[in-house]
Amino acid sequence: MKEISKLMNYRSDVRVVDATLRDGGLVNNFRFSDEFVRDLYLANIKAGVDYMEFGYRADKEMFRVEDFGPCKFSDDDYIRTIVGENHTDLKIAIMADVGRCNYKQDIADRSESPVDLIRVATYVHQIPTAVDMIEDAKNKGYEVSCNIMAISNAQEADIKVALDILGQSPVDVIYIVDSFGSIYPEQMARIAALYLEYAEKYNKKIGVHAHNNQQLAFANTIEAVGDGVDWLDATYSSMGRGAGNCAMELLLGFLKNPKYNVYPVFQFIEKHMDKLRADGAVWGYDLQYLLTGLFNQHPRTAIQYTQDMRKDISEFYKEIISQE
Amino acid sequence: MKEISKLMNYRSDVRVVDATLRDGGLVNNFRFSDEFVRDLYLANIKAGVDYMEFGYRADKEMFRVEDFGPCKFSDDDYIRTIVGENHTDLKIAIMADVGRCNYKQDIADRSESPVDLIRVATYVHQIPTAVDMIEDAKNKGYEVSCNIMAISNAQEADIKVALDILGQSPVDVIYIVDSFGSIYPEQMARIAALYLEYAEKYNKKIGVHAHNNQQLAFANTIEAVGDGVDWLDATYSSMGRGAGNCAMELLLGFLKNPKYNVYPVFQFIEKHMDKLRADGAVWGYDLQYLLTGLFNQHPRTAIQYTQDMRKDISEFYKEIISQE
Repeated sequence: MKEISKLMNYRSDVRVVDATLRDGGLVNNFRFSDEFVRDLYLANIKAGVDYMEFGYRADKEMFRVEDFGPCKFSDDDYIRTIVGENHTDLKIAIMADVGRCNYKQDIADRSESPVDLIRVATYVHQIPTAVDMIEDAKNKGYEVSCNIMAISNAQEADIKVALDILGQSPVDVIYIVDSFGSIYPEQMARIAALYLEYAEKYNKKIGVHAHNNQQLAFANTIEAVGDGVDWLDATYSSMGRGAGNCAMELLLGFLKNPKYNVYPVFQFIEKHMDKLRADGAVWGYDLQYLLTGLFNQHPRTAIQYTQDMRKDISEFYKEIISQE
Repeated sequence: MKEISKLMNYRSDVRVVDATLRDGGLVNNFRFSDEFVRDLYLANIKAGVDYMEFGYRADKEMFRVEDFGPCKFSDDDYIRTIVGENHTDLKIAIMADVGRCNYKQDIADRSESPVDLIRVATYVHQIPTAVDMIEDAKNKGYEVSCNIMAISNAQEADIKVALDILGQSPVDVIYIVDSFGSIYPEQMARIAALYLEYAEKYNKKIGVHAHNNQQLAFANTIEAVGDGVDWLDATYSSMGRGAGNCAMELLLGFLKNPKYNVYPVFQFIEKHMDKLRADGAVWGYDLQYLLTGLFNQHPRTAIQYTQDMRKDISEFYKEIISQE
C-alpha cells in the first residue's frame, strides 16, 4: 500500500504535459483554429500546466501540407504566431516520430526555436534511430524525452534492453506508453517499478502516457504517479486517438501541488470542446475500444468501426476474437 | 504491490452482482419493459453472473405504484413472472432501504419467495435499524448483505463502530459503497484493508459498489478485488444514478474465472441499451459528475444540471465550490 504521507503531499518533480494538440490532432487531422490553439495556450498557463505539446514535426516530403492542419508539422514559425517568444513558465514541446521526421533538417537549434522539449516516439525495434534523434536534439540544446510505444505487445526482455540503451543515451525522460489501453493498474505498478529501476541507475525521469480504452487512463496515471513516475500526459476532455487519453480535468483535480488549477480547464472545455464534437471530431471511451483494449490490439479496427457508425458490437466482438 | 500469482489466477469466492435494474432504475423510475428484464435475466445466466438484483422492495404506503415501474417494488409475484421458480445458478437479490421498506410485512419467508439475497442499504447513523432488518431477513432464511452508504463523508471512528456492530450481526456480506464517486484507488486499498480486518474477525465477506464520477468505478472495483474484496457490483453499460457504476462489460472482461463470459453482455447491450438512451434515460460520466465527485458531494446538483441540459460547466464549478 502506498504511504499516506506521500499521497497527501506532493512531489515538486511532477510535470504535467498537455498533449491535446498532438494526440487530439489524430482525431481531426490537426485542424484546430488559431483561436483554439491560442486559448489552449492561455488555459495551460493559467492552469499551471508544465509543458504544452504543439503537435508532430512531420516530414513535409512525406505528408502533404494541405491534407492537415498546422499542428501536424508544428513549425517554429507557426508556434511563434501563437506564443511569440513565450515569456511564460509554460514550456513548449513537439513530437518527432521515428521514420516520419526529417529531424536533422527540420529541427533547428534551440536558441533559434520557441520549442523547449523534443519528444521522440519509437517502437522497441527502432531504438537505434531513436537514440540518433535523441542525440541530435540534445546536441541542439533541447530537453528530450522518449516514448517507447506499444509495450503491451513487446517482450519484457526487449523492453529491458531498450531501457538500458536509452539509459546510456542523453535522454532526460523515458515514457511508459499504453498505446492500446490494455494495461491494468496492477500491471502499471510493475511496469513503473521496472522503468524506475533504470531511471535510478541512469539518473533519468519516467513519464506515463495512457489511453482510455478500458476507462483506466486516469486510474493508470494516478497509479503511476503514486509509484514514483513524474511526467504525466493528459489532454483536455481526454481528446486523443480512439478512446482518448487521461483527462486533464481529472488529473489536475487530483494533483495536490497548489500551482495546478483546474478551473481554467473547465472554462476552455466549455468554450471549445462541444464545438469540436459538433464539427465532427469523434473520440472517447466506447465499447469497440474496450474490446481492442481488452484483447490488446491496435485500435485501428475500432476506429474504423466508429467511422462506419456501426452499432453491431456483438458482431465486432467476433471479428476481434478472430484476429487473436 | 499485489502478488502476480494471485492476479493471474482467480478466487472462486468472487461473486458478481448485476445491479442494473436497481441502480439503473434510479435513472428511468424503474420503467423497464418485461422484455428488457427477461433478456437481462437470460444474459446474466449466460454470462455466469452470480446474483441479479431486481430492484428495491419499496414500501407501497410511501411510494405510489403508478409513479414507478415494477422494479421499484420488485414484488415476489413480479419476479416470478420473469424467473418462474428460477431453476438456474443465478441467484435473485432485492434491496431493502432503511426507512423505505416495510420489511416485517413486505418480505415473506424465503421458502415462499423467489428471492435469495436481501441487500440492506443504510447510512452509518441508521445501523441499529439496519441490524433489525438483517436479523429479520436472516430469520426468514435469506442470505443478507449490508451496504453502508456515503462513507466518504463519514468519520473513520464511526465506520469502525458500524463495522463492529455489523460484525456481530448475522449479516453475510458488508459492502464498501462509494456513493459520491469520490474515492481514489489508493484510498480504496486502505478502506478495503479496514473492512477486511473486521471481515476476518467476524467471518464475513466484503463487497464493493462503486460510482463512476471520476471514471474510477472499474478501477476501484479491480483495486478492491485485488485487495481481497469478493463481492463486486456492476451494471450493464454502467447504468446507474448520475455517473453510473462499474460497467459489467469491463468487469467480466477482467475477471479470470472461466465461468464468466462477457459476450452475452455485449449482445444484451446491443439489443437494449441504445434504445433505453433513445427513450430518454440519461446516465454516465460527465464533467458535472466529475465535480461533485472531486468535491465529495452528493450528485443531486449534477443530476439537476443534467436534467436542465445546462452546458455552463464553469458556472456550475463556482456553484459547487460555494457549497464547500
